[in-house]
Amino acid sequence: MIKLAVDAMGSDLGPSVIVSACLRFMNDYDVHLSVYGKKEALTLLENQKNIVIMDAREVMEMNDGALATRRKKQASMIRAIDDCVANLNDGIVSAGSTGALLSASTLIIKTIKGIDRPALLGSMPTINNQLVDFLDMGASAENTGEHLVQYAKLGNAYAKYIRNIKAPKVALLNIGGEESKGDTLRKETFKLLQACPDFNFVGNVEGRELFDGHVDIVVTDGFSGNITLKTIEGTASLVNAYLKDSLMSSLSGKIGAMFAKKALKQMKSRLDYKKYGGALLTGLNKPIVKAHGSSDEEAFYYALVQLYKMVDNGVVEKIAREINHENL
Amino acid sequence: MIKLAVDAMGSDLGPSVIVSACLRFMNDYDVHLSVYGKKEALTLLENQKNIVIMDAREVMEMNDGALATRRKKQASMIRAIDDCVANLNDGIVSAGSTGALLSASTLIIKTIKGIDRPALLGSMPTINNQLVDFLDMGASAENTGEHLVQYAKLGNAYAKYIRNIKAPKVALLNIGGEESKGDTLRKETFKLLQACPDFNFVGNVEGRELFDGHVDIVVTDGFSGNITLKTIEGTASLVNAYLKDSLMSSLSGKIGAMFAKKALKQMKSRLDYKKYGGALLTGLNKPIVKAHGSSDEEAFYYALVQLYKMVDNGVVEKIAREINHENL
Repeated sequence: MIKLAVDAMGSDLGPSVIVSACLRFMNDYDVHLSVYGKKEALTLLENQKNIVIMDAREVMEMNDGALATRRKKQASMIRAIDDCVANLNDGIVSAGSTGALLSASTLIIKTIKGIDRPALLGSMPTINNQLVDFLDMGASAENTGEHLVQYAKLGNAYAKYIRNIKAPKVALLNIGGEESKGDTLRKETFKLLQACPDFNFVGNVEGRELFDGHVDIVVTDGFSGNITLKTIEGTASLVNAYLKDSLMSSLSGKIGAMFAKKALKQMKSRLDYKKYGGALLTGLNKPIVKAHGSSDEEAFYYALVQLYKMVDNGVVEKIAREINHENL
Repeated sequence: MIKLAVDAMGSDLGPSVIVSACLRFMNDYDVHLSVYGKKEALTLLENQKNIVIMDAREVMEMNDGALATRRKKQASMIRAIDDCVANLNDGIVSAGSTGALLSASTLIIKTIKGIDRPALLGSMPTINNQLVDFLDMGASAENTGEHLVQYAKLGNAYAKYIRNIKAPKVALLNIGGEESKGDTLRKETFKLLQACPDFNFVGNVEGRELFDGHVDIVVTDGFSGNITLKTIEGTASLVNAYLKDSLMSSLSGKIGAMFAKKALKQMKSRLDYKKYGGALLTGLNKPIVKAHGSSDEEAFYYALVQLYKMVDNGVVEKIAREINHENL
């Protein structure tokens, strides 16, 4: 039976939404679930079939980094990770500190052979109702061309085994279409990606084409990826605020909004990151899903579903074999 | 009398929209206007008060770079720039190739003393109906920390003299708020910006806060700036496409859209880059406005207004004196 782990602490909304998400998930999926956290916050999970509460008395805080990883041995996150290494868990979902999760899992679970660093992979919806996956969204603050080639391999395997795309189109985020465009890192990376036979590299993609649905995987360094991700959030908020403002500033606008209520809700839902699960920590020897810090029940539920798919498909093992050119 | 120059060639929509924009502008402003381009495309400007047609037989194309600058001496863009250096024009608007405009003006007009490279400055609306100015939006593909300090000075002067902000808040685009965040360039630049007494540096800003209205000037390298700019465009398009889709997919949505027609138009107008003029080529000895390649009459009109303000306020002279710490 698949064994999933949940770090129930460290999220913005507290453990109760995570508890609800776990109950809903266990209703839909037949797995074994270990939930790490302060047991008094997890009482609703007591005596539930296939759920084990792992009482963990410490919490990794937002500012906890590599040091805390070694100090807070009893933190829910660290316990979940330790048990992953001991093969008691097949994968983890956490809504806790990204920095702590990254350093702890890199340190303890370690990267796949052939991968120097983990990358955060996130999915965004496209105009034609497909998805586009980005990596790295900010696991690193600085990267080399070699890292980006590794990210291309990770993204390619993810799209193949989770999204079932035969030959995923892998593109490099850049400031123009031509090979000669971009800074030193982009020019070097373009050549490396072009020379690598392990995936279908289709060239550069610009920010304004990100959502066109023409590419499946967008590779970029962690700095640019994080800037891009947050700019998308900021722009979507701006457009939403303007829309609300405009509708509410006149009677006809208000009437229109009333009629269009369902349609507007539908639009918001299509843009909603929650449906797309969490960000995936790729490149490690176990799948780890980083749920958004402010995940509500639904978001955390989908993060669990995403983790389930990763484990069920044996994606990490497939990636490891593919990267090291072993037979699948 | 203020003498403005228009490069009428090289735009996506052809010279006719530019001709209309010139006529409208000359109706509203009392200036001398030299319009460079093929005279047969500019006949509507013949015998108009204070307008002179400068027949130029060549056109700078989208792919023209530094080489073409030296070769196409008779291009409308180059003639306008040459006449600027000869003090026959006080500034230029062009909707032609950004690359060509950048290399030609850097080569011929040259940068202000104390500024190594020009930067593209663009304005975006914020949630609280203010503006935020970004630079560099892509004049360079790679920058040093020193460049970014110079951009901070240019942006600061622009906000002071054009937007009349007393002590503009200057921020560095980064992946977190703390000083320690970001790549090598960001860490170095943070220290340099903090040490420079010439402007009010308020720290890092993240992509999701760009439109909050808390900062006036956002400084970044040309690579990240261009990625950010295009991601904003891409995201706004995605949200608009989803909105349209959702409204049109049901009868109630359609009825809502009908009632909210004015409100939706108002929202689009607030997001419309046209109203904010073109991108400004800052750091050169003359003001140059790069109108969007697909500028319609209105967009080009506002680009002319923006150029007029730059010249009327003597912004370039003020920037030059301020950067070199001469008395204003």
